[in-house]
Amino acid sequence: MDVITLAHGSGGKLTHQLIDGIFQQYFDNEILGQKNDSALLPEVNGKIAVTTDSFVINPIFFNGGDIGKISVCGTVNDLAMSGAKPLYLTVGFIIEEGLAIEDLRKIVKSIAKTAKEAGVKIVTGDTKVVEQGNADKIYINTTGIGVVTRDIYIGGEMAEPGDKVIINGTLGDHGASIMAQRGDLDFDFSTESDCCLLNNLIEDILNTSNNVKVLRDPTRGGLATTLNEIASQSQVAIELEEEQIPIKAEVRSLCEILGVDPLYLANEGKVIVIVSEEDVEKVLEVMRKNPMGEDAQIIGTIVDSNDSNVYLKTGLGGTRILNMLAGELLPRIC
Amino acid sequence: MDVITLAHGSGGKLTHQLIDGIFQQYFDNEILGQKNDSALLPEVNGKIAVTTDSFVINPIFFNGGDIGKISVCGTVNDLAMSGAKPLYLTVGFIIEEGLAIEDLRKIVKSIAKTAKEAGVKIVTGDTKVVEQGNADKIYINTTGIGVVTRDIYIGGEMAEPGDKVIINGTLGDHGASIMAQRGDLDFDFSTESDCCLLNNLIEDILNTSNNVKVLRDPTRGGLATTLNEIASQSQVAIELEEEQIPIKAEVRSLCEILGVDPLYLANEGKVIVIVSEEDVEKVLEVMRKNPMGEDAQIIGTIVDSNDSNVYLKTGLGGTRILNMLAGELLPRIC
Repeated sequence: MDVITLAHGSGGKLTHQLIDGIFQQYFDNEILGQKNDSALLPEVNGKIAVTTDSFVINPIFFNGGDIGKISVCGTVNDLAMSGAKPLYLTVGFIIEEGLAIEDLRKIVKSIAKTAKEAGVKIVTGDTKVVEQGNADKIYINTTGIGVVTRDIYIGGEMAEPGDKVIINGTLGDHGASIMAQRGDLDFDFSTESDCCLLNNLIEDILNTSNNVKVLRDPTRGGLATTLNEIASQSQVAIELEEEQIPIKAEVRSLCEILGVDPLYLANEGKVIVIVSEEDVEKVLEVMRKNPMGEDAQIIGTIVDSNDSNVYLKTGLGGTRILNMLAGELLPRIC
Repeated sequence: MDVITLAHGSGGKLTHQLIDGIFQQYFDNEILGQKNDSALLPEVNGKIAVTTDSFVINPIFFNGGDIGKISVCGTVNDLAMSGAKPLYLTVGFIIEEGLAIEDLRKIVKSIAKTAKEAGVKIVTGDTKVVEQGNADKIYINTTGIGVVTRDIYIGGEMAEPGDKVIINGTLGDHGASIMAQRGDLDFDFSTESDCCLLNNLIEDILNTSNNVKVLRDPTRGGLATTLNEIASQSQVAIELEEEQIPIKAEVRSLCEILGVDPLYLANEGKVIVIVSEEDVEKVLEVMRKNPMGEDAQIIGTIVDSNDSNVYLKTGLGGTRILNMLAGELLPRIC
């Protein structure tokens, strides 16, 4: 079996073989083909949005995706959350010596396929190889560049009392799926990671309403942690209706068995939409027409309060506070 | 001793403590302070240059720098090599559980200091933590964004017969210094890494001549490998005069003892300048006036040949071909 060796990271012959034989082949575009120290992009007319993320997920191939797909989705989605149109990606690989070249090829193909779906170009990259035992197979950094063409501002500090909170589908699928694959469960668990591109869904939302205040993806730390961030940035409280929060029965069962709260599980294909009450129904309608928003639900309301808490109103009429994630539920979820 | 735990990468409370307590404190600027999924940058007027690099250097603190300094210098220099003015950086950390928080703080301070010197802002970042044994202390990705304001094009494919090759100083200092620190030598070795910012030097060069064809930093693979890349891109051969190539006596001695060729050692503060013959003297003069170019030398000439070879003319009148680095001299040099 052909494997990655330290020499593939030397900058010499084998590095060039990797670039020409794998990266150029799948990522092919005229900008990447420049082969200089920097990639030169065409002029961008409008404000530029930038985001960066490193992906260290374990396992690298999982039910519903792989580290290549999640590396593109995560960064493209972060650009979309700012109301930006994703344009370009950079890709940096840190590879553990001994990775099968076929595994690298699969990952690179997955990156290329997802980037094509998202309409973004891979414009430059970097490859480092570390000795066996100094990484776990492969880590990927992607940095995304997008352009804000709309005359709107979306941000975590924009939520106002009365605004509604929508989620585009079931919570915890990614975290539960990864947990099930890592654990040694004695039952079948079929829920796939929700890892997907959200830029089209967000485009639909922004075409429908000028009153979208916040868009954010509840990844690490889950819905509960992300809403805490927003409550704190906007200096408001958030009230959630537990019965409205969509969670798959299988995910709920797994969480009960393992004693974890699905509201803290990571999602990789979900977006929290905070929108003015007047526009909430039309936004919900357009979301449900998009394949990535079929199960969208209104799950809560922004309320006037300086405590910046997130309250969960339970079906039994009680209320409890959802804090930010304190420890670590599951490392290397993305 | 306070150390990084997996919970620092959870996206929850400890992640936010790290962001507020360390990253915001040292990287402070209005763009980073937005705290949204993407950073929004002001409009950039001109072509945009983008480059990405991951840094996995071992040791993380070395004679002449640290992984923070090299992470900024490497990416800023790559932007400058394209004739771009560096503007913004993203920073992605992959941290091994157990890293001392004081070490992280030192690295972050070093990033902040170097970024300030380079005139670039850290606009967004990301932190992942992996279990002990799945990284080696800390890896850093930086992605740089710059703007090309000059109406010139600089690239590896632009070298033409008759052009001259200049180097801004002694070769192999970085590689030799790292090699000496990793090895178990029974003698003192005092040469520091040449890790430094080159954007001011390049600014001086571009202010002096409109006939600069290629700028490239001979990092991994050293001078020999980088010149092979250029020869191949430009479809020319390159003749080097061995006696003109500046190498410190101490570096030369270490290389002799270890049996390595200094022309393949990595540099982190060197630039290869390929310029038309008519402008070579004035470029050399302005380079020597800059602290980063005091030891600049004309080391070779571009010659017309389809073989794309790099020839080294030795002091004894012989000539040998310098190939691209074949194996791996020293892993994790940057």
